[in-house]
Amino acid sequence: MSIPDLKHMKRALSLARKGMGKTSPNPAVGCVIVKDGVVIGEGWHKKAGGPHAEIFALEMAGTAARNADVYVTLEPCCHSGKTPPCSEALIAAGVKRVFAAMADPNSKVNGNGFRALEKAGIITECGLMEDEARALNLAFIKHVTTGLPYVIYKCAMTLDGKIATFTGESRWISGAESRRFVHRLRSRCDGVMVGVDTIIADDPQLTVRHVRGKNPWRIIVDSTLRTPESVNVLSESLAQKTIIATTEQNPRVHLRYLQRGVSILVCRERNGKVDMEDMLKQLGERNIQSILLEGGSRVAGEALKQGLIDECIFFYAPKVIGSDGFSPLAITGISSMDKALIFTDVSVQKAGPDIIITARPEQPCLQA
Amino acid sequence: MSIPDLKHMKRALSLARKGMGKTSPNPAVGCVIVKDGVVIGEGWHKKAGGPHAEIFALEMAGTAARNADVYVTLEPCCHSGKTPPCSEALIAAGVKRVFAAMADPNSKVNGNGFRALEKAGIITECGLMEDEARALNLAFIKHVTTGLPYVIYKCAMTLDGKIATFTGESRWISGAESRRFVHRLRSRCDGVMVGVDTIIADDPQLTVRHVRGKNPWRIIVDSTLRTPESVNVLSESLAQKTIIATTEQNPRVHLRYLQRGVSILVCRERNGKVDMEDMLKQLGERNIQSILLEGGSRVAGEALKQGLIDECIFFYAPKVIGSDGFSPLAITGISSMDKALIFTDVSVQKAGPDIIITARPEQPCLQA
Repeated sequence: MSIPDLKHMKRALSLARKGMGKTSPNPAVGCVIVKDGVVIGEGWHKKAGGPHAEIFALEMAGTAARNADVYVTLEPCCHSGKTPPCSEALIAAGVKRVFAAMADPNSKVNGNGFRALEKAGIITECGLMEDEARALNLAFIKHVTTGLPYVIYKCAMTLDGKIATFTGESRWISGAESRRFVHRLRSRCDGVMVGVDTIIADDPQLTVRHVRGKNPWRIIVDSTLRTPESVNVLSESLAQKTIIATTEQNPRVHLRYLQRGVSILVCRERNGKVDMEDMLKQLGERNIQSILLEGGSRVAGEALKQGLIDECIFFYAPKVIGSDGFSPLAITGISSMDKALIFTDVSVQKAGPDIIITARPEQPCLQA
Repeated sequence: MSIPDLKHMKRALSLARKGMGKTSPNPAVGCVIVKDGVVIGEGWHKKAGGPHAEIFALEMAGTAARNADVYVTLEPCCHSGKTPPCSEALIAAGVKRVFAAMADPNSKVNGNGFRALEKAGIITECGLMEDEARALNLAFIKHVTTGLPYVIYKCAMTLDGKIATFTGESRWISGAESRRFVHRLRSRCDGVMVGVDTIIADDPQLTVRHVRGKNPWRIIVDSTLRTPESVNVLSESLAQKTIIATTEQNPRVHLRYLQRGVSILVCRERNGKVDMEDMLKQLGERNIQSILLEGGSRVAGEALKQGLIDECIFFYAPKVIGSDGFSPLAITGISSMDKALIFTDVSVQKAGPDIIITARPEQPCLQA
C-alpha cells in the first residue's frame, strides 16, 4: 500500500464514521473514488434502506468513474437487498481497481463481492486499514458472525466503586456531561436493557434526551414478570417499543402487558432466571445488533460472567458514598486475584467532573 | 509582571522541583539571579541542613550579583537555622530587586524576610506565580500553618472498586508500574502509615524498593497494640524507624515493642480508638510533614470522615473481583447522594495497564 492509498482510505473511514450508529442493521461504510490522484467521488451509507456508500460516490463521479480507483471501507455487496448490488454498479461504471479495508463478514457476501468484481476484470485488494474499519462496525460484525448483539455495559459509580447509597439512591452519581454521553450512546444503540429491579427502583424512561437521536428498543429482563404496569416504560407513548424478556410462559399472564403494546420474549430458563444467551440470541434474530446494558448489577454480573459483554464503560464521579453502598457487578465467589476477570483495551477520558474508563472483558470469562 | 519575569520565575520553579520530596522539613525552593536579561546565577535547596537556593545562586553569580534581580520561589528567610539567613546574604551581595512567588508561611518569617530586604533598600515583589509555588510545597505549607502533616491516601482497587477478594487477598491488584509509582511516593513522604489489620493481613515491609530513595518512617495505627512481634516492620533492620500509635498507656505493655527499638506514640482515645487528629498532631511535632496512608479501609475511612486527608490517589486496575470483595473506605451511613463526600481537583493518568485518579476531598468533610 502507498501513502496516497492510505490517505484515501482514511478519508473513506471518516466518511463512514458519519453514518455510525445510524445505519443498523447495515454497517457504516464510506467510499472515495480517485482518478489521477484527484478525488472525484465521495459517499457514505446514511441509513438502512438508502443507497450504499459506493452508489453516492459513483453518482458524484459520473462518467469520470471510468478507469478510476475506488477506496471503500467494506467489501462491496453482490446481493440485492433493499437496494441493487454495488458490485454491479461498480462494474457498470467501469472502474479500474477497488481497494477495500475488509471483507464483508456477512455470509451472503464474504468474498463474493470481490469475485464478482474480478470476474469483470476489476483489480481488487483487501485489508488496507482493516483494524480501523473493523472498529467502525463492531456491532454489525459481532451480530452477523454470531447472531448475538454487541453488548455495552455502562455504569456510573463513585470513586469508591458504589452505584447507589445503602438506601438505593443513585440520582445523581454522575454529572450532566456524563449523562449526555449516555444519551448519545443510547441513540447509537438498537436497544437499551435493564433488569426489572432497576425499573422498580428508578422507574427510568430509557429514552434519548439531552441529545438528538432515535429512541432505542427498551428491553427489561424480568424472569418472573414483576414489572409494575404503572411504570414509565409501559406508558402509552413508550410501551410500543418496550420488550420484556421473561421465563414466564403462561399467555394469560402475558396478556396485561401485551394489551399495552409491549412485546414479550419468552426465554429459556437458567438457574431459575432468564437465560441471558438465549435472550440475546432472540434479540439478535429481531435485528437488534447493539445493546446498551444499563444495569442493574445482577443482570450485568450474570452477563459478564457468561462472557456476553463486549465492552464496559465505567463513569467515576468524584464522590465517595462508603462501604455500605451498592457494587456495580453482583458477582461472588472470586477467592483469589488469579481468578479476577481481566479487561483489555483500557482507555480513559474526562466528562465534566467525571472520569470515564472504557475496557473490554478478556474472553472467555468465568464459566458460571 | 512582565514576560521575562515569568520566564525567570518558571525557571526558578523548575529548579525548586529538583528538590521536591528531599528537603523535608524544609520547603523545596529554587532561585535565579538575572542581570541585564542574562541569567548569572541559579540554585535550589537540595536537602535540609544544606545551603538554601539563594546561597547557591549567589555563589554562582559572584560579584556580578550587585544590582541584579533575584527570582525566588519563596520569601527569603531572615532567621538563623542550620544556615545563616538568606536575607543577609542578598543584602551583602548588593542585589537590586527580589521577586518572590510567595511569602513564607512559617511564622518566624512571614513577611519579615521582605521587611529586612526593604530596610536595606532592596525592592521586593511577592505573588508572581504563587499557585505554582504553593503546589511545590503543599506538605510544608500545611504543616507549618496547622501543625498537622499533609496526608495522601493511596489505594489500589479493581474497576468495580474492590481492594481485596472476599478472602482478603490483594496481591496484586495493580500492575508493576503502579507499584513503582507508589514506591516513588513513599520515598517523597516523611512517613507511610497503615492500620494494624493491614500489618496482620499483608505483613508489608513499607520500605522503598523498585526506585531509589530514602525509607520513610513506618507508622502503624494500632489502638490496642495487636501488632505481632514477628512482622517485617518490627524486624531488626526496620524497627528503628517504626512508630506504633496506640491508646494503650501501660508502659509494661509498651516494653516488648520498645525493646525492639520501635517508638510508641500514646494518643488520645476517640470512640475507643486512636484519635486520628491527635496522632497526626503528635507526628507533626516530630517534624513528619507528609504521610502516605496506605490503608486499611477503616483507618482511611475514619481519616476521610474527619477531614484529615488532603489528597487521594486511586489506582484502578483493569480487573473485576465482584461484589463480595472489600471496599476502599469503611464509611457507613451516607443515605442520600446529597450527603456524598465530594472531591475536587480531579486528574487522571495511566500507569501501565492501570488508571490513576487523583483528587482532593472538599473540606470540611463529614462530621463524624
